[in-house]
This record gives sequence, structure tokens and C-alpha cells, in this order.
Amino acid sequence: MDRELLQFIQSKGFIWGPSPEIYGGVAGFYTYGPMGKLLKNRVEEKIRSVFSKSDFWEVECPTVVPKAVWKASGHLEGFTDPMIKCTKCNATFRVDNLLEEKGHESSIKDEDMLKNVKNANLKCPTCGGAFEDKILRHNLMMKTTIGLDTEAYNRPETATTTYLPFIRYADFFRKKLPFSVFQIGKAYRNEISPRQHLLRMREFTQAEGQMFIEANMKNNFEPFKKIKKRTMPLWSAKLQHEKKIPADTSLDKALKENFIKSQAYAWTLNLVYELFLAMGIPKDKLRFRQHFADEKAFYADDAWDLEVKTNSYGWVEMAGIHDRTNYDLLQHTKESGKTLAMEGNIVPHVLEIAFGVDRPVFALLDLFYEYKDKGEGKTTFNIPYDLAPVQVAVLPLMKKDKLPEKARKVFDLLKEQFTCRYDENGAIGRRYLRENQMGTPYCVTIDYDSIKNDDVTIRDRDSGKQTRVKVKKLVKTLNEGAK
Amino acid sequence: MDRELLQFIQSKGFIWGPSPEIYGGVAGFYTYGPMGKLLKNRVEEKIRSVFSKSDFWEVECPTVVPKAVWKASGHLEGFTDPMIKCTKCNATFRVDNLLEEKGHESSIKDEDMLKNVKNANLKCPTCGGAFEDKILRHNLMMKTTIGLDTEAYNRPETATTTYLPFIRYADFFRKKLPFSVFQIGKAYRNEISPRQHLLRMREFTQAEGQMFIEANMKNNFEPFKKIKKRTMPLWSAKLQHEKKIPADTSLDKALKENFIKSQAYAWTLNLVYELFLAMGIPKDKLRFRQHFADEKAFYADDAWDLEVKTNSYGWVEMAGIHDRTNYDLLQHTKESGKTLAMEGNIVPHVLEIAFGVDRPVFALLDLFYEYKDKGEGKTTFNIPYDLAPVQVAVLPLMKKDKLPEKARKVFDLLKEQFTCRYDENGAIGRRYLRENQMGTPYCVTIDYDSIKNDDVTIRDRDSGKQTRVKVKKLVKTLNEGAK
Repeated sequence: MDRELLQFIQSKGFIWGPSPEIYGGVAGFYTYGPMGKLLKNRVEEKIRSVFSKSDFWEVECPTVVPKAVWKASGHLEGFTDPMIKCTKCNATFRVDNLLEEKGHESSIKDEDMLKNVKNANLKCPTCGGAFEDKILRHNLMMKTTIGLDTEAYNRPETATTTYLPFIRYADFFRKKLPFSVFQIGKAYRNEISPRQHLLRMREFTQAEGQMFIEANMKNNFEPFKKIKKRTMPLWSAKLQHEKKIPADTSLDKALKENFIKSQAYAWTLNLVYELFLAMGIPKDKLRFRQHFADEKAFYADDAWDLEVKTNSYGWVEMAGIHDRTNYDLLQHTKESGKTLAMEGNIVPHVLEIAFGVDRPVFALLDLFYEYKDKGEGKTTFNIPYDLAPVQVAVLPLMKKDKLPEKARKVFDLLKEQFTCRYDENGAIGRRYLRENQMGTPYCVTIDYDSIKNDDVTIRDRDSGKQTRVKVKKLVKTLNEGAK
Repeated sequence: MDRELLQFIQSKGFIWGPSPEIYGGVAGFYTYGPMGKLLKNRVEEKIRSVFSKSDFWEVECPTVVPKAVWKASGHLEGFTDPMIKCTKCNATFRVDNLLEEKGHESSIKDEDMLKNVKNANLKCPTCGGAFEDKILRHNLMMKTTIGLDTEAYNRPETATTTYLPFIRYADFFRKKLPFSVFQIGKAYRNEISPRQHLLRMREFTQAEGQMFIEANMKNNFEPFKKIKKRTMPLWSAKLQHEKKIPADTSLDKALKENFIKSQAYAWTLNLVYELFLAMGIPKDKLRFRQHFADEKAFYADDAWDLEVKTNSYGWVEMAGIHDRTNYDLLQHTKESGKTLAMEGNIVPHVLEIAFGVDRPVFALLDLFYEYKDKGEGKTTFNIPYDLAPVQVAVLPLMKKDKLPEKARKVFDLLKEQFTCRYDENGAIGRRYLRENQMGTPYCVTIDYDSIKNDDVTIRDRDSGKQTRVKVKKLVKTLNEGAK
């Protein structure tokens, strides 16, 4: 990430950190300032809207969850990073990252990584010492205690917590498949050395949708009909093997050619596409990448990622779409002793969409920030109007002659309906610039004529066009996109 | 809480728990089901709206925070519950609760509580054994670890985390006091035996507003003028001492009589009043109770609670309003070595509004749930229309003759704008009843005439009145309150 972008994100009140800054900061923790939080809320509103229209219902599960759950889900044993320790200075490093940074192959197998470290003769980057002859496994969950002695963990993902109330869902949805829920909430991963700003946080906001569906419904899925002609950039495992670029492919065709396995799965890919377009990510920055067979989780029947092309870090994984089969429900049935199944002992399959809120927010900052005209240090933030943190700025032309009083009245009127800022400080041109830097779509200016005629000027961010409007028509005009 | 209310809350998909239910549940943790989460979101939208209109700006700070912060805030040492242990069975109890439950006086001093236990000759409620001759202090924070060895805690409150970025705020608000921020987010308290459902959770959602203001501005606070004639039920320490009931008093008068100390503080009381009225709590269920001198935190210059009269638990504290003076900023300046002050070394005072989201949600369920006509088991949920989880239900009269197809079209139209449910199962009367139980304001029914005339019936929840409306006017009519 370049310095100008970081400076923009911090100084305009988007993201601060690592937090807590006054205590030196801890890597992987960030604070959303007022502009960042408004932006994040807009992104979450889009997620809620798209999910709700697709008949997904939101739930909120606890973030602190007892050990038994993570034993069942496999996180207690399997959710680890491979580490290697210096024999001389005791510094500890993620061995897979170390290998990749030095241009060597990593692996998912400990013995292969250890072999590669030896072959490459890697030394400690801190002191040059030799590494220990073993890989340590560091669990990524943050452990805590409930009550006096109940072992628990801050959840490392929302998904597992979403599956647990399955019996309640079946009842709420009146015992009829398919049904779908979603959750937006905090998750925690205790990475050793997180970098890359909002892309790799120890505390982050996850968003995920889960569809519970009978196995034999997956290829007899009515809603698929409506979207089957939809094309999207699909980068199948085969195309990747052949070193070809992603191809715009209809979901219909992808199914026929068998690199997407079911109608329902194809439908969830489309839903992810809708989600990211609604969040304002431009079409030409999106692609779907299929996992190779050896990349997939052992329970996953099919797995694709949605990737977004950022300016700062290139293509970044933003969402995973998994056919998890009936693995989770069977596993929790086994471990809890409660039967997670429908009538007739049907155990639904789960189609999962897992993504986050912080990464799309980062992508919006990264993609729509523009640093131009370096001499004058002018920046603009060209965020789509419907995602802008502040919707309307109210600006009296001068800080005198009753203009501020009139402007305050307009401000009071507008803030009933819009997110507004009031600003009376500095030359009007500088204030327009300031709003451009925040991405504010409309500036409403109150001048001397406003007092006589009870009207104002609306300035459009992108066109710079100014329109004169009566105050009594102002709300309506702004609601209609100031046309 | 009575069984019917609990049954209603669980079976209608509002709140499930203690969570995770299939693993036996852990006290103090709950899951919001689809109806509960919609309700909670509406409450949060109201909070955001009222705060934003009062020029409070939302921020989001991390929930996992390193030890140094809690040392500075005093939580590490002081945020504890007094416990007593049985010498025979080793069971541990909160000694203050135990004393109160058995009808004895508690105290804030350990030695007094111990004396009272002895005088009352209290025994272990589990086994009848004698208690140890000492009070143990149990810290209420959930401890965890960041990285390999950084001691940290799940935050026990949002407030402290909100103060930490003070220097960033001062910059963002362009070095001008007063400025105000708010935060809505998770907090964690490791209570030993939490009871009372959503009123006492180990993981809960807090909401708080913080105004940073210069000390000498507190009694020269312009916005006070607009609301000074406002009356509210104030139960001063004096009235409580005199065993009198709260008196409807104007803020103006309360200031003159000196039981509210500053204009700015009075204004924050009014803001809390606005917040709770916007959240749908009826006026006659609210009162403000002043803290006695010995109840206040040592740094608080003034402290009042807002209390809500619930059916299940009587008067319950729902919000605290504190003049925290410049205590927190001075404390973090001292401990962090960074100067948290404005230009000219002015250290602002903090006026704090601290409440939660879960308690108002519980109050809404408790106050607007009605269990009537026990014979037929009919319940209704008379929540104010603007807070109802589902806004519109779409119901085809019959499950045949193309009525469902027509109804689906209406559903697709409405779900662009409203939170909708589609239901085609059972007799229409039973479906109306079902929607009444969820609090849904409007049922839109599609019948045989709908196919001929492209119109529908809107049924109003409270009046039961039915109105015939053309489909093309449906959205507008519903937006105008179906009049």
C-alpha cells in the first residue's frame, strides 16, 4: 500500500491503527473512524439488502464459544499455522510465509516445508541464526475462560456458530427445505505477524450466508432458472492449469461443461456476484477462481473464490463459496448427541458463502481513491454515490450576514433524511475540495440569494454542475439524485 | 419472567439460548434468531438515527485490547465481584447477591459483607456447609492472548476503547470543542452466575455516546436552550431520601434547584430520553433516578440512571449518564505518555451516556407481548409499527388457482423496499394470527379478484381494518402507513 493511500485513509477519518495507537498499537487491530464506520455501515446495509431479497434471514450468535464446539468443528486440532523458531534468538516465524518470501516453494505438509528450509539453507531474518529442526503448530484461536474454569475461545469464524441452532431453524422455517440464514459479526484469528492492513486482521468482521438444502434438490433448483444465462468471469481449475485467463461464461454452460457441479451452487456464485456488485466493486475488478483439488478442505465438494483486483496488492481473495455437503451437521450430531436433521432423518447439505466486511471496505478505499496533481496534493474519493459516507454537505457561502443561521436551518431539515455534515470554515472552493476528498456526492450551498429567495445551490461531485433549487423541494430533489 | 413470555420469545424465533443449546448451553450467552435480529437491527437503526441527528459520529474500536489499557482504566484492579467459597463443597457464590437474596444488607466493603454473612450465619445453599472466612475478588474481564504472549482482555465496556483515539478525534473534528462520538458493539463480563435472560449477559451489545466538552462550556451550552422547557420524570436523590415518587420536572427547573449541575448534562439526559422514546419504550414506563453520593464512581461528578418498568422484573436500569470530568483523558495521558488534550493544554470533560441494545430489546418483548385468551393460546405482539421485525406479510388466499404465482409477484415487488415474509400455508385466519404474533403491521392478501383487477387487500394489524388497493399503488400506500 502506498504512503499516499495510507495517509488518505488515516487523515480523513477512515481507518486508524494499529490500535490502540497511544499504547504503541498491536498488529492486526484497527479502529474505524467516523468516515470509515459510515462506509462500513453502508457496505453492511448492502449485504443485508441483497441477502434479504434472496430470502436469507439474519441471525446473531455468540462470539465466545466453549471448547466442545471447536473440538467438534476440528478447529481445536486443525486450525493452526506452521511456525519455526530460531535456535539463537528464539524469534518465531511462519515457515510458509518465510519460504514464499525468499522465493521457495511452500507446502501444506510440515515435513516438506522443513525439507525446503534445509535445502534452501534459510537462516533467521532477525539474527542470522539457524532454525530448529522442527515445525511448531500455533493455534490461531484466542483462548479465554467463562465463569471460573470453562475453557472457551473467541470464535475464529462465524460459520460454525451459525450451524449450531439448526434444530431451531428447522422449526422456525416450518420444517421445509431449502432455508437460508446469514450472519455478520466479529471473528478472531491470532496470526503471528499480520500485515497488509485491513486485509489481514486479528479481529475482523465476517459476513456469511448458509443455505441448507436437500442433496437431491441441488440439481433441481427452481431459482436457478432465472439466472442461468448470467455470465461471469470464471477461472476454472482447468483454465488455470492451461495458463489461460478467466473466461466470461454463462452459468448454464459452466454446468454443462461440468466445472460447476450443481444448479444451487451456481446460484450461490451468482449471489456472491450480486453482493460484490451491490457493494460497489466494479465488474472488471472481479473474477471467480476455482480451487484445485489439493487446495480444497477435505469436506468440500466444490470450492471457488471470488477475487478482487486491488491497486495495492493485486488480486485478493474476498469470498469463498463452498459446498460443505452434510459434513458439519453430521459432525455436530456426533459430538453433541443431538440429531441435526429434518424429518425422515434427512441431513441437509450446506452451501456456504463466506466473506468479510473489512476487505470490501479496503477495496473501495483502494479502488476509488485517486491521488492526482501531486503538486497541489489534491486527492479525490470517487466512491459510488450510494456508498458515500456523508451524503450531503451543507455550506454557508460566508461565515457572516446570517448565512450560517440560514444554513443551520437547511442542515436541520436535511439531517432528518440524510447523513449530513455542516462546514462553515474556509473558502468555499477549499470546502468543495474537502468534500470531494470524503466522497460526498452533494454540496448544498447557502448564499445571499438564499435568504431572499429561500433557495440553495446543489453541487454535484462528479460533474461539478450546480443546480438552483427551492428549499421546499430540496429533500425531494436530493432523493431523486439531484436531477 | 413467566413461562408464556419465554415460550413466545423462543418459539417465534426472537431469542434462543442459553447458547450453544445443543452442547448444553452456557449461562449468559444467547442467540438472536431471525425475528430477534430484525428487531435488534431496528433498535440499532433508531440509536444511530438519534445520535446522528444530534451530531454524534459513530466509531468502531477493537474488542480485544491489551492489558496496559485496562491497567490505566482501573479495570484490571477494580473490575471485580466479591465471592465467597464453601469450605465443604468448594462451590463459589457472589456474596452480595447471597446476602440480598436472604434478606440481609449488602455493602460495597468486603469486611462489612463478611461481617453480615457471619451475623446472619449464612450457609452454602448447595450443601449447607460453612463459608471460608474471607472474600475473594473475581475479575469480570475475559482474559486472552494476542500473538504468542501479549496479555489482553475482551473489553468489559465500549467506553474505555472509545477514549483511546482522542488525538485522532481532535484532528478529525478540526480542533474544536465540543465534539461527540458514539459506539455500538460487543462487550464481555464474566459474571459468575448470570440470570435474568437478556438483562444479564456475559456477552452483550453496548451502545454509548461520549461528548468531549470544555469544562466552562458545560453551563454555557447553546443547544440546551431548545430543550430546557422539556419535562421528564426525575427522581432526585432528595426525593428518594424522602420516600417520594419521581416528579415531572422541566430541565430548566432542575438546574435552578441545583439537582442537575450543568446545561450540557441536562441536555444529555434529554438525549437519553429521546433515544428510549425512539426505541419505542412508552413514556409512562420511563424514569430518571439520581445516584446517591455513595453510589457514584469516584470520578463521577454527577450520575443518573434511566430506568424502565418491565413486567417481568419491575424497574430495571437501562442507561447511565455520567459526568466523568477529565478523569479518563488524564489517566490515559499518564499511563500512555501521550498527551490527550486540545491546544493550550485544555483537557476536555467527558459526558457519557452508556446503555445497551439487548436490554431495550428485552423491554420491547416484555412490554408489547400480550398473552390473552388462554383457552385458545392466542398471543399478540403489539410492537410499534416502525420497530416491527417483519413489515409486510404477503399471503395468497388459497394455495391454488394461480394465487401463489400472483402473490409471489407482489412479494418480489415489495421486498425491494420492505422486510417481507411470504406465507401460503394454512387457513387465512390462522396466517393473520401468526403475523399478529410476530407483530407484523400489514398483511397483503391476494385473492381471486386480485387476478382480475390487479389489486390486493391490506389488513392493518391493530384495527383489523381491510383496505383494497391497486398493486401499482401498493408500495406508496404502505409507505404512507396504509392509509
